[in-house]
Amino acid sequence: MGKGSLEQLVSQLARRAKVAAAAIAILPTTTKNAVLLSLADYLQAESAMLLEENRRDMLLAESAGLSPAMLDRLRLTDAGIAAMASGLRELVALPDPVGKLEECSRRPNGLLVGRMRVPLGVVAMIYESRPNVTIDAAALCLKAGNAVILRGGSEAFHSNIALVTLLHRALISHAVPADCAQLIPTTDREAVSHLLGCEEEIDLVIPRGGEGLIRYVVAHSRIPVLKHYKGVCHLYVDRDADLAKAQAIVLNAKTQRPGVCNALEGLLVDAAVAPAFLPPLAVAMQARGVELRGCAQSVALCPQMSRADEEDWGREFLDLILAVRVVAGYQEAKEYIDRYGSRHTEVIVTENYSTAHRFIAEIDASAVMVNASTRFNDGGELGLGAEIGISTSKLHAYGPMGLEELTTRKFVVYGQGQVRE
Amino acid sequence: MGKGSLEQLVSQLARRAKVAAAAIAILPTTTKNAVLLSLADYLQAESAMLLEENRRDMLLAESAGLSPAMLDRLRLTDAGIAAMASGLRELVALPDPVGKLEECSRRPNGLLVGRMRVPLGVVAMIYESRPNVTIDAAALCLKAGNAVILRGGSEAFHSNIALVTLLHRALISHAVPADCAQLIPTTDREAVSHLLGCEEEIDLVIPRGGEGLIRYVVAHSRIPVLKHYKGVCHLYVDRDADLAKAQAIVLNAKTQRPGVCNALEGLLVDAAVAPAFLPPLAVAMQARGVELRGCAQSVALCPQMSRADEEDWGREFLDLILAVRVVAGYQEAKEYIDRYGSRHTEVIVTENYSTAHRFIAEIDASAVMVNASTRFNDGGELGLGAEIGISTSKLHAYGPMGLEELTTRKFVVYGQGQVRE
Repeated sequence: MGKGSLEQLVSQLARRAKVAAAAIAILPTTTKNAVLLSLADYLQAESAMLLEENRRDMLLAESAGLSPAMLDRLRLTDAGIAAMASGLRELVALPDPVGKLEECSRRPNGLLVGRMRVPLGVVAMIYESRPNVTIDAAALCLKAGNAVILRGGSEAFHSNIALVTLLHRALISHAVPADCAQLIPTTDREAVSHLLGCEEEIDLVIPRGGEGLIRYVVAHSRIPVLKHYKGVCHLYVDRDADLAKAQAIVLNAKTQRPGVCNALEGLLVDAAVAPAFLPPLAVAMQARGVELRGCAQSVALCPQMSRADEEDWGREFLDLILAVRVVAGYQEAKEYIDRYGSRHTEVIVTENYSTAHRFIAEIDASAVMVNASTRFNDGGELGLGAEIGISTSKLHAYGPMGLEELTTRKFVVYGQGQVRE
Repeated sequence: MGKGSLEQLVSQLARRAKVAAAAIAILPTTTKNAVLLSLADYLQAESAMLLEENRRDMLLAESAGLSPAMLDRLRLTDAGIAAMASGLRELVALPDPVGKLEECSRRPNGLLVGRMRVPLGVVAMIYESRPNVTIDAAALCLKAGNAVILRGGSEAFHSNIALVTLLHRALISHAVPADCAQLIPTTDREAVSHLLGCEEEIDLVIPRGGEGLIRYVVAHSRIPVLKHYKGVCHLYVDRDADLAKAQAIVLNAKTQRPGVCNALEGLLVDAAVAPAFLPPLAVAMQARGVELRGCAQSVALCPQMSRADEEDWGREFLDLILAVRVVAGYQEAKEYIDRYGSRHTEVIVTENYSTAHRFIAEIDASAVMVNASTRFNDGGELGLGAEIGISTSKLHAYGPMGLEELTTRKFVVYGQGQVRE
């Protein structure tokens, strides 16, 4: 495809999305839910077709030499399809944010002023290999009344086309314009840069994937971007911690699912409790296959630990590796987090009321927790029901983004003829 | 100043702001209020000095041939200084948004989850001639716990330096770091582009001024921008309108203060009521010196009107000029607003319940009103207390931005040792 025609294709697609957005913005909740339920049914009814299309992607990916971890993310299974379908049914059960009137109050002149949740408009999702993101993201955008433009990874191209075909069938069966959810029908990377220039049509870009993808999107976009680069989550074991709680939380945060952004990457231990806390923790970690990389003080307490390099501080391992550092107390822990944290998730374990209070007030992160696992920074766990990503930037949304974060609020004013003096 | 040293100067200033932001983020409300009250006192005590510095700017501006409207915006007076001081005292009375815990609920596993309002960090204000913006913006940022970097118009340079000197005195007198509020100490335009590249230090950019300034900032910024390009506000007189209410609202919206963004620029009248509504309106408008530019149907009804050009539709006159168009009904009015509106303020005048309901639900603008003047789209009038600008983009804030819009929310989680299954 020539450069000019690719740019035209992308901008036509964006303009069609904008037209469709106006229609979906005012769709009744019942219609949106009916589309989601039909899609859930179609996914399960057509699972053989989906697995076949996914097999084509897998064969190409294998012959291209993709890593086992990437192949694993790309693979669709019956269980994976069932999970997508049940995710859709759970989304149907969530309240529709659109039209919710908040902070309604009467002004002295009698005007009734409120703020009404309305869709953002057109959302562009740019993501990597997992095909389930195609369904999860499109469904969340639709329920929140937004049109969505999907740009999946080139390695999942056939899987994504098959999924979007079913999505279109679900939309059309309820007389909703199929332009509400469009897949960019090419794997050409240039399409992404054209997409990022459509600031008149697209209201928000959400990149999901590695740090390289996200940095590329931020550097090239003229459209607002909700992003998180990485999750470098810390846990600070305070001198007043319940050490049994601390050990259970650290083990969970590091090992329950080490490859995700809310897994623990750095452990800070108050020097006053390090001799009692670290040696038994090191034994338990070793039993679970976790490699510990410590500061000089930590290594002196635990012969199993290797010595951490400078680049291990603030590193996102996404693996069974943990950086461990002994600190003089709260203040040093805070300074370490300020320096090495990624504003994703920070935890203190303490029984001290005032220290907990300070940590909550002073630590800058999308989720700040006392006596709980970092793994709880997740839309489902925090009560949002479903999430489209986790923002570590502060504008619009900070932390997990659910249906409400895919909307904005306009002011509505009910008057009886008021004029301004 | 050499290019390298200007870039260094701006980035040092941004780094110092980031350090100061951490300190001001956790300042007690009483300290922030004390700074604001001291500043109010200093403004009034030092009004002679302020007027003298402003006179220097005025002389330079006059000799540079600035328009009377620009000179008027630049001029400081005793009344203007008193208004700044009373604005500060009103801000003291507003609740501090920082630390407010919202949407707190208990999860099934016992975790207590809430969302706490926290400052954004560092806000950069880029604005044009009015020196009062220096004080208004700095005060709002400080009350919301943010550090602020001020870049005022070059024509107000001496006035702004004098104002910031008093601001620093107020900060220092309460032991608050003066780096919380810094003025870029040069009129070199290059400084703005350096500022817009400091994405590691600055969290938000707010441009205030003409469309040219705002487009420049949006095109060059790697930092999120809250913007509004222009206010092209419409009012639709529905066939079921109370015509007396409609006339009073139109007169107010157009003439009460024609040079501002929430003034009325376009009037749409249902054909069913145009013969009854337009001729008396045209007489009243003429008496107030308003020039009406109409469609063919409007001109046929009102001989005082001139014929509108194509570019009068959707135009921001900021003057005693109004575009008038007869429409077939609600649907045509909506399509006109979708096409020519700027998503600022849109009003319907109607006594019909269902039409009012539809307009509120379907019209996309930062403020949608029934039976009220466009002039009410203002932070003070809508109950925010004070505003730092009006956003017509949908991310983070849509409409007037007050103290809460200068904050974000982080998740806080109070656990008792919970781990994830």
